[in-house]
Amino acid sequence: MNRATNSREVSLRERAKRVIPAGMYGHQSVARLPEGYPQFFERSEGCRLWDSDGNELIDYMCAYGPNLLGYHHPAVEAAAAAQQGKGDAMTGPSDVMVDYAERLVDTIGHADWAVFTKNGSDSTSACIQVARAHTGKHKILIAEGSYHGASFWSTPRPSGVPDDDRRHLVRFQYNNIESLEQAVAEVADDFSGILVTPYRHDAMVDNAAVDVAFAHRCRELADRHDAVLIVDDVRAGFRMARDCSWAGIGVEPDLSAWGKVLANGYPISAHLGNERVRPAAESMFITGSYWFAAVPMAAGLAVLNVMDEVDVVAHVEGLGTQLRDGLAEQANRHGFDLHQTGPVQMPQILFADDPERKTGDAWCLECLKRGIYLHPWHNMFLSLAHTEADIAQTLDVTDAAFASIRR
Amino acid sequence: MNRATNSREVSLRERAKRVIPAGMYGHQSVARLPEGYPQFFERSEGCRLWDSDGNELIDYMCAYGPNLLGYHHPAVEAAAAAQQGKGDAMTGPSDVMVDYAERLVDTIGHADWAVFTKNGSDSTSACIQVARAHTGKHKILIAEGSYHGASFWSTPRPSGVPDDDRRHLVRFQYNNIESLEQAVAEVADDFSGILVTPYRHDAMVDNAAVDVAFAHRCRELADRHDAVLIVDDVRAGFRMARDCSWAGIGVEPDLSAWGKVLANGYPISAHLGNERVRPAAESMFITGSYWFAAVPMAAGLAVLNVMDEVDVVAHVEGLGTQLRDGLAEQANRHGFDLHQTGPVQMPQILFADDPERKTGDAWCLECLKRGIYLHPWHNMFLSLAHTEADIAQTLDVTDAAFASIRR
Repeated sequence: MNRATNSREVSLRERAKRVIPAGMYGHQSVARLPEGYPQFFERSEGCRLWDSDGNELIDYMCAYGPNLLGYHHPAVEAAAAAQQGKGDAMTGPSDVMVDYAERLVDTIGHADWAVFTKNGSDSTSACIQVARAHTGKHKILIAEGSYHGASFWSTPRPSGVPDDDRRHLVRFQYNNIESLEQAVAEVADDFSGILVTPYRHDAMVDNAAVDVAFAHRCRELADRHDAVLIVDDVRAGFRMARDCSWAGIGVEPDLSAWGKVLANGYPISAHLGNERVRPAAESMFITGSYWFAAVPMAAGLAVLNVMDEVDVVAHVEGLGTQLRDGLAEQANRHGFDLHQTGPVQMPQILFADDPERKTGDAWCLECLKRGIYLHPWHNMFLSLAHTEADIAQTLDVTDAAFASIRR
Repeated sequence: MNRATNSREVSLRERAKRVIPAGMYGHQSVARLPEGYPQFFERSEGCRLWDSDGNELIDYMCAYGPNLLGYHHPAVEAAAAAQQGKGDAMTGPSDVMVDYAERLVDTIGHADWAVFTKNGSDSTSACIQVARAHTGKHKILIAEGSYHGASFWSTPRPSGVPDDDRRHLVRFQYNNIESLEQAVAEVADDFSGILVTPYRHDAMVDNAAVDVAFAHRCRELADRHDAVLIVDDVRAGFRMARDCSWAGIGVEPDLSAWGKVLANGYPISAHLGNERVRPAAESMFITGSYWFAAVPMAAGLAVLNVMDEVDVVAHVEGLGTQLRDGLAEQANRHGFDLHQTGPVQMPQILFADDPERKTGDAWCLECLKRGIYLHPWHNMFLSLAHTEADIAQTLDVTDAAFASIRR
């Protein structure tokens, strides 16, 4: 591979600057990645990407989550193509919508019903709307630093958003029971709900598993004040459990928000709720042009079928452990203090004492040059398509990258 | 066709009631259509649908807009399948994103840049966000009764939405210059923008072409107060012009919102803007999991290619005229006062003195029983796949339906 021959990338960026604001926007802009990261991709297969100049990369971002089973997983592609041949966006939904809602409700322990949307932001927005419709109250408690989408109320960079649209959010510190109780006290009788990620997966900082006592306290406080508990599983869904990500710790939310992973890249998100909040969900008018389209639902059913046959969570956990252990040994050997946090299957990798991420950027760039796409400040994702051989190839590269930046 | 054999529909509705709030939600719920309309569809082709019991229907809703060229248009399907084989949702966009942004900017006269999103609501929301970021002001003027999506600020049934989220909207009467000027005076120095549909296409009432003087006054008032003019072309786009729908009357907005029609059903929306508001667009963080996916962009390019080869607007206008003239003659002959409003290619059909739509519902149901899917209160849509023979077949049915309800 010769990353110097990036003539298509250079040309595409120049053209993009003219017709796309700042050349790119949103979470897939490479503006905050080291110079040298490709903005444009030509092709994907399994766990691999090819950039627009044909450079092959092992991808540890999985499209920022959606790629759970591998790009072009044959069972998902076959189901999607078969449904596409029948119909996708039509004047009403297909029967596959009912099949898919039933299967999701069967799969997700806390859920009695499902509503399908398109963006992760649609599902988190709908969840707080259900909470407010159910309680008749306004205040939603969210953790400082947690990302819940890029709608008016949630975008981390609210240029062009009136303060009024964000007035009813109150912050607590993730995993900090005292700060949660303070927030509950602060909102008093206007406490509508708690919206919380299943673990702390904030960008640019060390991630953290949820403290089990904290999660239970979320449930208790919601119950005590007739508020609603919402788990935002848009990012972590189906990589930690074949259920809501808090199922393993015995905390059932009233609502969960889903996206990304549901249909292995086909566009669909969903929010799932229990009987308690069903009337609230029925009171709202939310909709979208493509929310009833059948192809992503057929693809979502295929994902659940694959997950019935293969233990996807165990697979990504096993590979994540192989990667984490290997990196820990290498970092130690090369004399780096590497912070590996979050679940092993969604690794966040930062260097200690690296506030401007100079070391992290350099290391990631050395890996990129050698065909491994890591992210220097966002949690990464493993897929069913990654193999032990891919991890071993990755570890060969990371070792060389550590050596290179040590020099 | 025997619509009595609707056993699958009955069974699907029962199952849906258990796992989907109210059995269905949003604009594709048949809750407000006459009993007998199918909720679920099995298949689509050209301008035809088959419901879940296999009944064939000529579809005048076109998936509520997206189906511009016909379901499964071969050029669009081929482009989408080819791109799907390469990659769709990846860790970054494909080069097709640049091609598509360039082509849209070339096609839409007022536009210098494009941002792709997923829902029509995403594009209208982004437009008012750009307006607010550009002006530093809050108030958005919208017409009473206009639909601009189902986000917190825009949903027509705001259950679960704090009043604060809708505080900065100010209403005027569509086509009423005096009420527009009053609204401008009311918001004074907090006037951020005007968001307006290209014609009045409100549900349940007669539709109306835009008054040209009114459209020019929108532009003048925005200019005078350093506010932003936004045309919401999500519903009407590419059926009135191969450009922004106001291009023909010489009024250029700063921003236009698009969706539905862009990729013939593949899920994509967009907002397009001029140089004046580009810095504002660059200041915002908006994003979505699937906004960078390549397949809908490849499909969108194919739509533009088809529109270069075939005069789609002339086609749907011609058929719309054939339908409108035929219906007018029949209504007159059968003694009904039929209100046919809106552009002929997006017909709104209501009966005079029918406030509960009893006549309209009965007529539409008679048409449905005979294989024609009309909508009793929402504007309809024609496509390139409809033919003169389809319209003639439709007119045979509508004639029989008039006769039936006259009895």
